Amino acid sequence: MASLPSDVTVREVGPRDGLQAEAPIPVEARVRLIEALLAAGVTHVEACSFVSPTAVPAMAGAADVLAALGRRPGVRVYALVPNARGAELAAETNFVDELTVTVSASETYNQKNVGRSVDESVDELARVRGVWNGPIDAVVSCAFGSPYEGDLEPDAVAALGDRLVAAGADALTYADTTGMATPRRVHDLLDETGPAVGLHLHETRGTGLVNAYAALERGVHRFDTAVGGLGGSPFAAGAAGNLASEELVAVLDDLGIRSGIDVDRLIDAAGVASALVGHAVPSRVATAGPRTRLA
Amino acid sequence: MASLPSDVTVREVGPRDGLQAEAPIPVEARVRLIEALLAAGVTHVEACSFVSPTAVPAMAGAADVLAALGRRPGVRVYALVPNARGAELAAETNFVDELTVTVSASETYNQKNVGRSVDESVDELARVRGVWNGPIDAVVSCAFGSPYEGDLEPDAVAALGDRLVAAGADALTYADTTGMATPRRVHDLLDETGPAVGLHLHETRGTGLVNAYAALERGVHRFDTAVGGLGGSPFAAGAAGNLASEELVAVLDDLGIRSGIDVDRLIDAAGVASALVGHAVPSRVATAGPRTRLA
Repeated sequence: MASLPSDVTVREVGPRDGLQAEAPIPVEARVRLIEALLAAGVTHVEACSFVSPTAVPAMAGAADVLAALGRRPGVRVYALVPNARGAELAAETNFVDELTVTVSASETYNQKNVGRSVDESVDELARVRGVWNGPIDAVVSCAFGSPYEGDLEPDAVAALGDRLVAAGADALTYADTTGMATPRRVHDLLDETGPAVGLHLHETRGTGLVNAYAALERGVHRFDTAVGGLGGSPFAAGAAGNLASEELVAVLDDLGIRSGIDVDRLIDAAGVASALVGHAVPSRVATAGPRTRLA
Repeated sequence: MASLPSDVTVREVGPRDGLQAEAPIPVEARVRLIEALLAAGVTHVEACSFVSPTAVPAMAGAADVLAALGRRPGVRVYALVPNARGAELAAETNFVDELTVTVSASETYNQKNVGRSVDESVDELARVRGVWNGPIDAVVSCAFGSPYEGDLEPDAVAALGDRLVAAGADALTYADTTGMATPRRVHDLLDETGPAVGLHLHETRGTGLVNAYAALERGVHRFDTAVGGLGGSPFAAGAAGNLASEELVAVLDDLGIRSGIDVDRLIDAAGVASALVGHAVPSRVATAGPRTRLA
């Protein structure tokens, strides 16, 4: 077994990426879900996004979510912003620690997702930098392939990351937005970027966990996951299901890798999520429990 | 990336392990599913089991399934037998290449599954050996943990494998019957057995593919999978879902590992399986297609 990291940061994106494609649920309910996640030991949470409530009704009321949460010691709150105006709104709340800004490695996906070219999105990140004093994590979507262009060259994807850092990003996360990553593609990209990046993985083709494991073997120690395995992009057909937080944490626990998250309480949070969205969640660990739960 | 095998044998267990817990479907329909699998390039198939039709109604008519298939050049047909009488029935058909015989590493699971102690099951395998001239693959169930006893010592699990070889088995397959394997547990068992074993993995906790990958990195090159991710044990609550054949093959394809199976035609077979069982199959690749299928 390759040398694995001793500690991993799990950024919970369920309240944002998990809920954005669901029917809207009230601010109070979204806060309740975040409270359940914090109770499980989650310390990094993408709580909301400052996108247009017309485009993404489920994300309406971002400032209200943040105000209801307030500041929590030891908790890092992320908000996604699509542009400088969103960054200003996030800044006004005084409750956001770090912004996430998404730019796609796929020209067509970027056009369909935000109606801008990749170059225009890089420029917009520079404008976000101009109005936001805190850290920015640039999330490169479709980093392992595009449903429109197919395979993308890893060096070109990494070069986009470099441009985003030059434009003002402090950290980079590479996202497998439509589930095209495999262990080979993870290795190919990490060959270009090194392991000091975050990975945001989806289960569209059932490869979320195996890709996380391949990345762990390369020393990656930042992962985005969604409680219950909720989520997917509302703009890409078949882009369903983030890597489930409790499925990753259950394996990390067994590998002896610390995440600081209690898997049983995380499963409780998945139950909260399931009740709020009104349907079963795809996470198998949420259903079967961790391997330590005997008959 | 660790050195991976260049070729892998995928034994398709959908017609047996995949269907055994479903409502019974006619012999003709089961043959149609096997035909679809063979058309996809499957060369190793567990076609049926000679268990009591009272205990497992879905497996009734095993000899009829085999007779309808007949002998196919290049195809290796397996039948599961629970005892020497089953082996005699399999032998009488003249259509079985190899038997699979299951013995559990978990005393309680074995008792609940076949009403025998593990020692009695080892003795029964010796009786199977006495009436069957062809090869026997002994499948050690609960090899990565038991829902009743919890963790099992890998050296004790491997020692059971040794006893089964001494009793007449020609090959060994270790099964994660209730989804308790993780990459760590796979490594721990392979430390004892070496890589010349088959693995039979389940997705009860979403770890089927990551466990297969960890095993590939150790040189394992035999895997049991079920088309569509059907299956699970009818005797263990929550033991749902074999590793989906097309999810494994899709990743093997991208890793450049030959299986001889065409993933698109395998997805067609998953469609056949779904229609026959009358519900959606859990395989994500069956839904989303392989990563090469663009928007």
